[in-house]
Amino acid sequence: MEEGMEQALQEALWRQIPLSRAMDLRVVEAGGRVRLGAPLAPNLNHQQTAFGGSLYCAAVLAGWSWLWVRRGRLDLGGALVVRASTARYLRPVSSAFTAVCPGPEAGDWERFLGRYSRRGRASLELPVTIEESGLEALRFRGEFALLR
Amino acid sequence: MEEGMEQALQEALWRQIPLSRAMDLRVVEAGGRVRLGAPLAPNLNHQQTAFGGSLYCAAVLAGWSWLWVRRGRLDLGGALVVRASTARYLRPVSSAFTAVCPGPEAGDWERFLGRYSRRGRASLELPVTIEESGLEALRFRGEFALLR
Repeated sequence: MEEGMEQALQEALWRQIPLSRAMDLRVVEAGGRVRLGAPLAPNLNHQQTAFGGSLYCAAVLAGWSWLWVRRGRLDLGGALVVRASTARYLRPVSSAFTAVCPGPEAGDWERFLGRYSRRGRASLELPVTIEESGLEALRFRGEFALLR
Repeated sequence: MEEGMEQALQEALWRQIPLSRAMDLRVVEAGGRVRLGAPLAPNLNHQQTAFGGSLYCAAVLAGWSWLWVRRGRLDLGGALVVRASTARYLRPVSSAFTAVCPGPEAGDWERFLGRYSRRGRASLELPVTIEESGLEALRFRGEFALLR
């Protein structure tokens, strides 16, 4: 079932968000946490390292995907959008990289579900890190909303 | 001369940052302020509006370009990188959009130049907005660094 979810997520990303295809973004894991990988070449910048915008796109899509997986499993419906973000670039990335979303902090998910069921709309903060060779290169937090 | 700067910036973006080409990002203005435009089609999301990651990329490149133009004019040298950002999405974008960087707040540019000349490295905060049909869709602030 996890494998089916990974394939469904991959197809949704590439079909619906053409920039994810231009980045050659791949779903590595779509379970309790989400991991998305990308090669360096289509995501290069002027320094021959990864473009900060590409790192951001991988991060925002990892958070979006975490909520997309839960929405599918629990049949929550609704439209899923990003509301706000903060990002801090910690080091340059000079090879393939991975965006990892471990899910929300304890308690946030239950609060989100309660609010969504009462109001038909709720927001969730999701942390994402970009890792390259085990080192953290980007620290991202996104606020995502689900709107029925 | 402004026209030459716009063409040089366009070439630098597309040659050095392949994702800017995938977005079909165009330099509209590269003078006292920077404006970058993009069509909707390559930047779509699952809602048939603009992908939040594409809006971010246009914004971060508008800030980066503002500093790139000044670095060129004043022959400052150094490597230009983004350090951190905050972004708030205000409304969905359903057609072509423009990222506008008006330059830093009064005084920030002089402080930046002073610090860069003393230390060979300095950071500058730059605001950028994404506009669609005259309405603000994304409010972005980036911290950019120039490192000799």
